[in-house]
Amino acid sequence: MSDRVEDFLAVRRHSERGSYERSVIDAILDEAKYCTVGFVDDGRPVVIPTIHVRIGDTVVIHGSPASRLLRLLKTGAPCAIGVTLLDGLVLARSVFNHSMNYRSVVLLDCHGRELEGEEKWEAMHRITEKLVPGRWDDARRPNDREVKGTTLVSFPIDLASAKVRSGPPVDDEEDYELGVWAGVVPYRLVPGEPIPDPRLAEGIALPSYLRS
Amino acid sequence: MSDRVEDFLAVRRHSERGSYERSVIDAILDEAKYCTVGFVDDGRPVVIPTIHVRIGDTVVIHGSPASRLLRLLKTGAPCAIGVTLLDGLVLARSVFNHSMNYRSVVLLDCHGRELEGEEKWEAMHRITEKLVPGRWDDARRPNDREVKGTTLVSFPIDLASAKVRSGPPVDDEEDYELGVWAGVVPYRLVPGEPIPDPRLAEGIALPSYLRS
Repeated sequence: MSDRVEDFLAVRRHSERGSYERSVIDAILDEAKYCTVGFVDDGRPVVIPTIHVRIGDTVVIHGSPASRLLRLLKTGAPCAIGVTLLDGLVLARSVFNHSMNYRSVVLLDCHGRELEGEEKWEAMHRITEKLVPGRWDDARRPNDREVKGTTLVSFPIDLASAKVRSGPPVDDEEDYELGVWAGVVPYRLVPGEPIPDPRLAEGIALPSYLRS
Repeated sequence: MSDRVEDFLAVRRHSERGSYERSVIDAILDEAKYCTVGFVDDGRPVVIPTIHVRIGDTVVIHGSPASRLLRLLKTGAPCAIGVTLLDGLVLARSVFNHSMNYRSVVLLDCHGRELEGEEKWEAMHRITEKLVPGRWDDARRPNDREVKGTTLVSFPIDLASAKVRSGPPVDDEEDYELGVWAGVVPYRLVPGEPIPDPRLAEGIALPSYLRS
């Protein structure tokens, strides 16, 4: 671990927003439906969004064995993994103090390991249950060909930090006198009504785990 | 431009999902409220989420002059910029064919240039208006100290690709007979009721641009 990586983890800008608490980090990782993986290809930075799941002290991503991302990362090539949850737009009286409320996590210096056998099966289970709890026991489970056709790479949660901003705007003291509306416009990622597949056979009801 | 970077842009996996149309790319960049910037620090990949705005053929990010990200990127150090919009969870009859509906853009091989003078002012204007249209004419505009206290870095949109998945699940033909519910759970990022700053002076009404 280089000093520079540790330095990044120090959450220097707005250090009051930083956290290294695993409970905070885990909750953000668990709520985020996808992550962005950053890696280096031929000296150039690349970012790719992908689905992740946290399993204990690890984060697991998956995809096709032909995926360039996974082929690279299963060798242990370094990557960074970031997730961000937008909670609101923060409207201050001054343009300068506008901000966003958010919760983010960055994992640095991640080195992956390919999962095999029972671990692989368990990770497929966990990814499915993260997507929609209850789904694993309802959908057709992976067959041998599909298990072979999935690469799963696991990264220990090691160099991790969370950054959180919440609450009202913070204006310069003299700006509180201005006649400008200030506050927060909250944002939330919300599910809508499930849309049945046009090819869904008649008589198949919406499962209970999708009704909440 | 290396062959390898071009190769990444070829959107090889699920090439039917890929697009290089600027109209598609621009619409996704404009809707996304934040991006994730990937860069290399001391040989290590790092990802950081930040607010962005598209201005014509460029993407602009901003922050404190003390920000490590901006101090690095304004020198022209290469970065990648990604945005992702989640549109839904795709529930297939088989676990293996589960997916997400999404729209994402990746910009590769980005080299930044620091904005100054009139361009800088215009970018601050555009960032504010992207956050909340109508806000620039209402909030107190930046003073000299605040303009000096903001670094803006602009990246040409050059090596860019969009990836979009939409529509129902695609199952293996023999799985359509299974008695498993299949379809899409749509997701949307939605604004809630604006929350006034606890220090908001009496008599300041919610502006019309926040009422829609």
